[in-house]
Amino acid sequence: MRAIRAPLTLSSPEGETVAAIRRTGPLSRADLEQQLELSRASVAAVVNTLLSLNILREVGPGESQGGRPPQLYAINGAFGYVAGVDVGATSIDLALADFTGRILERHDEPADVRDDPEPMLEHIADLIAGMVAKQNGRPDQVLAIGIGVPGPVKFAEGVLIAPPLMPTWEFFPIKAFIRQHFPAANVVVDNDVNVMAIGEASAGTGKGLDNFIFLKIGTGIGAGIIVNGHIYRGHDGAAGDVGHICIDYNGPICHCGNAGCLEIMAAGPAIAARGKEVALAGGSDFLRKRLEDNKGVLTARDVAEAAKAGDRAANEIVRDSGRMIGGMLASLVNFFNPQMIFIGGGVSNIGYRLLSSIRQAVLRRSTALSTRHLRIEFSQLGADAGVTGAIWLALEHVFVVA
Amino acid sequence: MRAIRAPLTLSSPEGETVAAIRRTGPLSRADLEQQLELSRASVAAVVNTLLSLNILREVGPGESQGGRPPQLYAINGAFGYVAGVDVGATSIDLALADFTGRILERHDEPADVRDDPEPMLEHIADLIAGMVAKQNGRPDQVLAIGIGVPGPVKFAEGVLIAPPLMPTWEFFPIKAFIRQHFPAANVVVDNDVNVMAIGEASAGTGKGLDNFIFLKIGTGIGAGIIVNGHIYRGHDGAAGDVGHICIDYNGPICHCGNAGCLEIMAAGPAIAARGKEVALAGGSDFLRKRLEDNKGVLTARDVAEAAKAGDRAANEIVRDSGRMIGGMLASLVNFFNPQMIFIGGGVSNIGYRLLSSIRQAVLRRSTALSTRHLRIEFSQLGADAGVTGAIWLALEHVFVVA
Repeated sequence: MRAIRAPLTLSSPEGETVAAIRRTGPLSRADLEQQLELSRASVAAVVNTLLSLNILREVGPGESQGGRPPQLYAINGAFGYVAGVDVGATSIDLALADFTGRILERHDEPADVRDDPEPMLEHIADLIAGMVAKQNGRPDQVLAIGIGVPGPVKFAEGVLIAPPLMPTWEFFPIKAFIRQHFPAANVVVDNDVNVMAIGEASAGTGKGLDNFIFLKIGTGIGAGIIVNGHIYRGHDGAAGDVGHICIDYNGPICHCGNAGCLEIMAAGPAIAARGKEVALAGGSDFLRKRLEDNKGVLTARDVAEAAKAGDRAANEIVRDSGRMIGGMLASLVNFFNPQMIFIGGGVSNIGYRLLSSIRQAVLRRSTALSTRHLRIEFSQLGADAGVTGAIWLALEHVFVVA
Repeated sequence: MRAIRAPLTLSSPEGETVAAIRRTGPLSRADLEQQLELSRASVAAVVNTLLSLNILREVGPGESQGGRPPQLYAINGAFGYVAGVDVGATSIDLALADFTGRILERHDEPADVRDDPEPMLEHIADLIAGMVAKQNGRPDQVLAIGIGVPGPVKFAEGVLIAPPLMPTWEFFPIKAFIRQHFPAANVVVDNDVNVMAIGEASAGTGKGLDNFIFLKIGTGIGAGIIVNGHIYRGHDGAAGDVGHICIDYNGPICHCGNAGCLEIMAAGPAIAARGKEVALAGGSDFLRKRLEDNKGVLTARDVAEAAKAGDRAANEIVRDSGRMIGGMLASLVNFFNPQMIFIGGGVSNIGYRLLSSIRQAVLRRSTALSTRHLRIEFSQLGADAGVTGAIWLALEHVFVVA
């Protein structure tokens, strides 16, 4: 791999060619002419430029369409590195990928997002540099870094705005800070759930779907929205903040200050709290024992395990949570009529009991037409949704297309 | 005006040129080169073709940029007619426009949408033909007809699917039926609220906005959704069916079979019913008198007039309705983070009391970031939103662009 000056500017047909090959895999010149509605001469010029820049490489002849088998062109994985970072409330997940998006290295560790941005981002930069060094690469070969953060992001500037979980990060210039360490890298910052939706749309079951919702259920609840195959961020970058949709005007007070938000009533901490209540009230032997073993601490995972073991009270807690989440989703289905809803995030590990109660609630309260083709499934990317999405977000922003 | 063979097929740059001039008004060749990123030669060829087809016309020199003032090109209004039809639950609104979208003739009359489609569409075709004749035109000069209907539409085919208000229309081939009368016309059918949103985006305050919601409040409640300047119909054409979002699991049973839909609790008939209750219970002298004068019938308009006259009970009814509608909108704002919400439909005539309670409810229950730039206003198109949108929907579909 060689160092390039960043960000590299491509013409619009060059950018479209790279995007088309990324989307569908190796293509011939004839394929590109057809897909991009370009002339033979334009495609020849574009392909030659991209080959000479080492962005594309020849990958041998494809299937013959009658005459000589055509030469196929693929993304050159060795063109440079991209990194994906998923900053969670209690952990950091990182991955280094080659230029095709193939993951070369992974790393995760506990972290506290309430820490100040400088030391945390400094540490993230060190971790990326370490992964690059392990591949015998140099920092200036990192061409793009995608970062997902658990809060609202003003996407163009890459800054957090009024982030409830990480107040000291507000307006911190993440892009400029990280670029000090990786001078050739375009740094892109987005909300963690948007990043997961991009991962699903680029490298998951959502690939090729026109519109879907990715719902993350963890400590909080949030949605990533795909419209016409692209992420939809809303007017202020605040789209998808569904955890603060009110489901009960008389419900408990949320950390946002309002009463009865979905998040405070149905996310991980609510499941854990109800589990503890039941344990203390003597409603579940399983949970009471677990509470004792854990020295008075009970997590959503404990409730999930109790439910899997057949505990009646734990199952009721999981079902209630699914009903509340599904009730909210039913409203979104009536409004947005998506093709698919992916469920991800830590709490989705609770399993099919949760999924089935979400599905039931959606079917009960959405219009018949809008659920005719709707599928609601767990994201197959699982815990990788964040870093996968961050890598694909980065790959989308390697080049400036002008 | 002359007859043309329909539908006329344009090349992609020709179609984009027409769309650009429609959007921004008269443009010079230099403007088109810049806006459409086309070469000088391409623009010259496209403009010559469109002039020879009579789709564009020269409109005299624009402002000089230093040298000779450039020739400007505009849409040729005399190229042909387009018609817009807004089929409501209890009325038909029609308008005939020239090719610039300028309305030449208007007509409206009471109608019952529960009637069978053949006689109603036959009558609509007669009304359009009558308007064309009044302009000394011929039916084969009508180039496109846009029709809004109060029910879910499968847009590509232009058929209604499971329409609750007009069951006999399900799968009726509206396009083919109307085309028998107007052989040169492309006929386009869409849901009435989508059509209103298109009107707002094309010829209203919504022009140039990236994303907004148009909420119609009348006998029912529905939303039209604009994403990136274009109507969003959802996977099954069912997007925007927000009248059946549940706002109270213990609420009254809606005609859809579910309990506590927004529509059954907050739309026109609910306002009228609550007004009648109050009148019979002696809670409002104004409404009691109006009920007697109307021989036992009370409408949402009566409640609106009572509220305007300062009647306390009527004001409470209006505020309650606004609160319920605003509560639902707050959820959509958290999810969709729109730039603007337009309120239209018959019940919006109730006035600013309704608007202000909707605004309060949205501000109370949406996240701070998503309401930072949000505006909620009555649609300035008023009762014309439907026909205006139908005309612009038609204008978008005059040509086949290949």
